Amino acid sequence: MAGFNVRSVLVTGANRGIGLELVKQFLEKSNPPEWVFATCRDPEGERAQQLKNLASRHPNLAIVALEATDPASIKAAATRVEEHLKSSGLNLLINNAGIVRPSTLESETPEDMSLVYATNVTGPLLVSQAFLPLLKKAAQGSPQPGLSCSKAAIVNMSSECGSITNLIAWELVQVVSYRCSKAALNMLTKCQSLGYEGDGILSIAVHPGWVQTDMGRAGRLSPLGLSVQGILNVLPTLSKKDNGAFVNWEGKVLPW
Amino acid sequence: MAGFNVRSVLVTGANRGIGLELVKQFLEKSNPPEWVFATCRDPEGERAQQLKNLASRHPNLAIVALEATDPASIKAAATRVEEHLKSSGLNLLINNAGIVRPSTLESETPEDMSLVYATNVTGPLLVSQAFLPLLKKAAQGSPQPGLSCSKAAIVNMSSECGSITNLIAWELVQVVSYRCSKAALNMLTKCQSLGYEGDGILSIAVHPGWVQTDMGRAGRLSPLGLSVQGILNVLPTLSKKDNGAFVNWEGKVLPW
Ligand SMILES: NC(=O)c1ccc[n+]([C@@H]2O[C@H](COP(=O)([O-])OP(=O)(O)OC[C@H]3O[C@@H](n4cnc5c(N)ncnc54)[C@H](OP(=O)(O)O)[C@@H]3O)[C@@H](O)[C@H]2O)c1
Ligand SMILES: NC(=O)c1ccc[n+]([C@@H]2O[C@H](COP(=O)([O-])OP(=O)(O)OC[C@H]3O[C@@H](n4cnc5c(N)ncnc54)[C@H](OP(=O)(O)O)[C@@H]3O)[C@@H](O)[C@H]2O)c1
Repeated sequence: MAGFNVRSVLVTGANRGIGLELVKQFLEKSNPPEWVFATCRDPEGERAQQLKNLASRHPNLAIVALEATDPASIKAAATRVEEHLKSSGLNLLINNAGIVRPSTLESETPEDMSLVYATNVTGPLLVSQAFLPLLKKAAQGSPQPGLSCSKAAIVNMSSECGSITNLIAWELVQVVSYRCSKAALNMLTKCQSLGYEGDGILSIAVHPGWVQTDMGRAGRLSPLGLSVQGILNVLPTLSKKDNGAFVNWEGKVLPW
Repeated sequence: MAGFNVRSVLVTGANRGIGLELVKQFLEKSNPPEWVFATCRDPEGERAQQLKNLASRHPNLAIVALEATDPASIKAAATRVEEHLKSSGLNLLINNAGIVRPSTLESETPEDMSLVYATNVTGPLLVSQAFLPLLKKAAQGSPQPGLSCSKAAIVNMSSECGSITNLIAWELVQVVSYRCSKAALNMLTKCQSLGYEGDGILSIAVHPGWVQTDMGRAGRLSPLGLSVQGILNVLPTLSKKDNGAFVNWEGKVLPW
């Protein structure tokens, strides 16, 4: 991670689970970012307590309200982040917020199909649109050639559950709405990789592993810290040749 | 097509385009199905005129109302089809209804993301759920071993635009909501292939080619008749080994 020199990073869904751990590990780096933006739905509420504790110790941590299913909230978050960054751009946008709803093929409902898609796919699309000017600014202001996560990048937190090639753990969890959403998020990532490459922005879909969080509760799970450490080791290794790829926390390329 | 012996088939979005042509070619077969169910949003209205003309000549054609974004309409359609079929099942369900909305990465809206997904993914999910008992009945009543489109099958009309591996025609049409929906539909198809194989039901995603319809208006297009002829030649060749695959109108397997 020594080579991972990110001046600013934003993580959505950062009040718990993988998002919170990402924020913690960015803050604990030997060369921490100038700005870590941790977004959550309710910065004033009980659920943001751990973030508030962190912020009291880390002046480079800003907690920003962002509800991924609300376009107005996303736009307001981009405005707030821009105020903090003043004239510089945002290097790294991590679309981490996501939900899963228990279901089988037969019990899957239109309500869950819609909510899971709005959160896991439309959310990352809108967040990326809103922060695009700041990502472009970071790319333009960077002396680095090519594409990299320390220059300007969108990281979409996907899941191996979105891999159509092999329906991993189908016998344990069918979660059709979740699988469809993550396959669609992989497609969004690929679209972003083509659409934003010319702007100097790298786009990547990452499977964080099977991790012990509120969401990850079944099967053989990795400790949260190890998974996030893996992700933070992989991100600085990514370059133009990886643009649009689907990689896991150990850097392995996963099939669509 | 000689070997394609389907007693009953249902096509959604059958009042125009590929759906209407599928209905026509099924009716014109030398061994036509006992029942062709052509569903559309408004059987009484102007847009169903071509179907009504066909029905006046083909007593085996039943026009049934089905709005793919309305669960109640889908359930009512299944009830009506069951009344027609009496004690027999439905062999072939073709989820053809679909929409595209012009967009780019930057102009894509949450409204279009939501509507395109509801129509192109949640629609096929709910239609398959509603017709599952009739598909199971067809599979149980069939003397054929294995899986086939003349025994019991779900055909989801996908698109090469849903292939994440290569973003075909990205320079011409970005249509992010559409691409994400078709990648998700491919995932749904794969889920259905695992979930329904034990019931004797084959599940397939089909790319119909680039076809001259109201939807297909850009690039080099195939005539509608040729594409549908191709699909009707491919379907009878599919068996258990193809379950969950993504094939085009010429029978070629496409990458996810
Ligand atoms: N855990 C695993 O094994 C695993 C495996 C594969 C992929 N993933 C992916 O990794 C990401 C993080 O997962 P996790 O395990 O950390 O999940 P988690 O513990 O359930 O945390 C989810 C986070 O997303 C936030 N969130 C949910 N809906 C939101 C919305 N509409 N707007 C804003 N924030 C929202 C939650 O905020 P609230 O506290 O306000 O609900 C929370 O901060 C997800 O995208 C997930 O799909 C996880
Ligand atoms: N044409 C191509 O080149 C091409 C290429 C790849 C894939 N496809 C796929 O092939 C399928 C058929 O395409 P097409 O070219 O025939 O399109 P089309 O000419 O635009 O016809 C679409 C059909 O779907 C129906 N439909 C749309 N929304 C519906 C809803 N909510 N409920 C019920 N019916 C609905 C339409 O009914 P109304 O008349 O009531 O609107 C119409 O019958 C689609 O799934 C499309 O994605 C087409």
